[in-house]
Amino acid sequence: MSSREIEILENTLLVVADNGQIEVVKPRIGRGEVPALLQARRKTRSQHDDDDTERDDSVVVHYLERTQFFIPGFVDTHNHAPQWAMRGLGQGLHILDWLDRVTFPHEARFADPAHARRVYARCVAGFLQQGVTTAAYYGSRHAAATDVLADVCLARGQRALVGKCNMDRNAPDTYRDADAAESLRDTEACLAHVRALDPERRLLQYVLTPRFAITCTPALLRGLGDIAARSKSEEQPEGLAIQTHFNEAEQEMTSTCSLFPEFRDEVELYAHFGLLTPRTILAHCCYATDDELDRLGALGCGVAHCPVSNMTVGGGFMAAPVRAFLDRGIPVGLGTDSGGGFSSSMLDAMRQALVASNAREVQSGGELKGLTIPEVFHLATLGGARVCGLQGKVGTLEVGKEFDALLVNADPQRPGVMTMVEDEDSLATIFEKFVMTGDDRSIERVYVRGRLVKS
Amino acid sequence: MSSREIEILENTLLVVADNGQIEVVKPRIGRGEVPALLQARRKTRSQHDDDDTERDDSVVVHYLERTQFFIPGFVDTHNHAPQWAMRGLGQGLHILDWLDRVTFPHEARFADPAHARRVYARCVAGFLQQGVTTAAYYGSRHAAATDVLADVCLARGQRALVGKCNMDRNAPDTYRDADAAESLRDTEACLAHVRALDPERRLLQYVLTPRFAITCTPALLRGLGDIAARSKSEEQPEGLAIQTHFNEAEQEMTSTCSLFPEFRDEVELYAHFGLLTPRTILAHCCYATDDELDRLGALGCGVAHCPVSNMTVGGGFMAAPVRAFLDRGIPVGLGTDSGGGFSSSMLDAMRQALVASNAREVQSGGELKGLTIPEVFHLATLGGARVCGLQGKVGTLEVGKEFDALLVNADPQRPGVMTMVEDEDSLATIFEKFVMTGDDRSIERVYVRGRLVKS
Ligand SMILES: [Zn+2]
Ligand SMILES: [Zn+2]
Repeated sequence: MSSREIEILENTLLVVADNGQIEVVKPRIGRGEVPALLQARRKTRSQHDDDDTERDDSVVVHYLERTQFFIPGFVDTHNHAPQWAMRGLGQGLHILDWLDRVTFPHEARFADPAHARRVYARCVAGFLQQGVTTAAYYGSRHAAATDVLADVCLARGQRALVGKCNMDRNAPDTYRDADAAESLRDTEACLAHVRALDPERRLLQYVLTPRFAITCTPALLRGLGDIAARSKSEEQPEGLAIQTHFNEAEQEMTSTCSLFPEFRDEVELYAHFGLLTPRTILAHCCYATDDELDRLGALGCGVAHCPVSNMTVGGGFMAAPVRAFLDRGIPVGLGTDSGGGFSSSMLDAMRQALVASNAREVQSGGELKGLTIPEVFHLATLGGARVCGLQGKVGTLEVGKEFDALLVNADPQRPGVMTMVEDEDSLATIFEKFVMTGDDRSIERVYVRGRLVKS
Repeated sequence: MSSREIEILENTLLVVADNGQIEVVKPRIGRGEVPALLQARRKTRSQHDDDDTERDDSVVVHYLERTQFFIPGFVDTHNHAPQWAMRGLGQGLHILDWLDRVTFPHEARFADPAHARRVYARCVAGFLQQGVTTAAYYGSRHAAATDVLADVCLARGQRALVGKCNMDRNAPDTYRDADAAESLRDTEACLAHVRALDPERRLLQYVLTPRFAITCTPALLRGLGDIAARSKSEEQPEGLAIQTHFNEAEQEMTSTCSLFPEFRDEVELYAHFGLLTPRTILAHCCYATDDELDRLGALGCGVAHCPVSNMTVGGGFMAAPVRAFLDRGIPVGLGTDSGGGFSSSMLDAMRQALVASNAREVQSGGELKGLTIPEVFHLATLGGARVCGLQGKVGTLEVGKEFDALLVNADPQRPGVMTMVEDEDSLATIFEKFVMTGDDRSIERVYVRGRLVKS
């Protein structure tokens, strides 16, 4: 699948193995052929797996209706879990004012792990309900609360990158790390917790999470870069994932420059501290010169495009140049930026990505062409998987990948306001109606690694 | 209520009379005072209404929970009913291509009144579900189908402006009026049907609906202007409502100019044919010179701002200069432009109006300031009522107005993805969370003229 087209497979047998991986994808078969195909599979398996006596070989078979289809699960590449209960508040404020007046006081409450458990349980359930099978979460600055977030993701079965937010300056005393040393100690503790929870990273990864350079001292940035460098191993040659906010708004960029006058731009700044790697997720990137794009491309960083928040909170109203990223092969995914953006829906993010790309097309005098539905769907799935370093595991429904998938049901009898399906609609039309007008009510089931996490 | 602020009344007694009108709004009272207040009301009424023996004086009393509140019903000032089942299709096409390839073939199917009944029943129910208590509907070009639309609105209890769409050229032979004479005859027939259904215009009004000048011959525009002029009466001094598309996109404006080279712009064109009155609803108005604004202001026309469609279908990506309309006192409401826009939700329209106004602020170099939440809420309610000529009847919850209202319920236990309400949230915060993140699931009940139309 390229970013410009979507492959629609009709009348397809899809088999998910007990380990959660997709074992068979066989298109264009009749319903009558299914039992024989499953029988043949069973025989092959029993020949090959003589010694695997514990394998559960029971097969559950579902036949889909005309209005049902599977799509890859959504990958939300930028999401502030502690902002779940403040989504939509503070519209019209500039980014730094919004942080001071709305966000920091709100996140400060996560000092209480019981509060964290209450809100995170709803947050993770809310995202699963909306088909977010993978999320890259910023936690609050609190290690204990962030441990809770990881616990909740694992318990509910959501694939997640989770990081304690690092911030040791330019935030209120009531809500910042005491100093770089404390911030780094808490980071190591939280990292150890996540590793212990899921040593094989089946679902969980830790992600280093400097909020942004404005709230991090050079010592903290250096310390985080060191952790990233030390994390490289044979298993993880590119080391730990890293996420931060990048070139989001003029006010933010100006402030960053005045704090770090020795660097000519944010690329140079974050690269200097070892924070730009192929595992880095840069949120926003609304502004980027050709020269910055060249350097980001060479470093292999990915972009979390957050069209909803780009066009509301922040005051900048500058849509990221997604077309320019795609043209250069820079990985791009979508982020709800839930909290900063008002919506927690990846469907809204897709639609707003269309809108934002139209805005950017106009702003660029027609040079950066608007995105298409296949392109925004690609961003929401495989594009996001690439940004999170998970393209080998998820993002498409191909043999060998893990089954992170949504069962969409566009039956007009279901509740909701999705455009009604008519008798003559092709599956392509039904898909288009879902992407443009569906919501979580059109998502009947959600699977992560083959496990049913919403039904 | 001005367009810049919202009045939130807590602990308020609101009484709706049997005729659907709001009879009492008494803020800041205790729950314990309610029975005595109702008793006093009953006495006053029996003194004054001795002869009205048929009055049903039974009183149903509801006490609201902390998370429940009433708001005025939404007024959707621009809505294509026959496009209900094609919402979201054809993204990325320019407006005239979108009409030819997607819209006209789709609307042509409403030649069959049975098809119309099927789709319109779902359409009207879908809008009521989403809190649209008043809609200004374009029907298809078919008088019979448009009669059905009026029937459905009346039966379901939705307040509506309904018009058969006029179009006698520049549309496929399979979907256009044969000539001006036929188009006008059908218009008169449909107008008579709507009048007969609801002679006192309790819920229904006919609205003259030339699609736009491109699809109307001069003879048709003149004939419609004549009907408008003849419709003025003592009861309706401004005559029938009129709606059309106006200055929507560059492609459309260029095409209009080449068809009508004798006029310098669309204001002059439509005014010449007698189609710009204080009852005129102009959809879009994305482009408007100061001179055009002056003339529109003097004519008293209203604008249906459709931010969702402005920023997707059409290819123009030009957000209407709403701030400029407001500054000049030009009435402005919101339209879902359901069909053209992908969403049928006035909440989405409000959010997109914020986004669009931010875009316009940037495009105008900061001159046209972005809108606020109170302002977009005003557009969705009283602003829309003004545009539809209904400001005396609906748009606010004031004594003497008819009770078109939504009971919002923000209880976090309800299904949906609205931002969870926390213990310390003020009603203003709960309201903000609803506007930015609620959906039809947060709208527990919908009333039109005091009648419960969704529960
Ligand atoms: Zn963010
Ligand atoms: Zn329209």
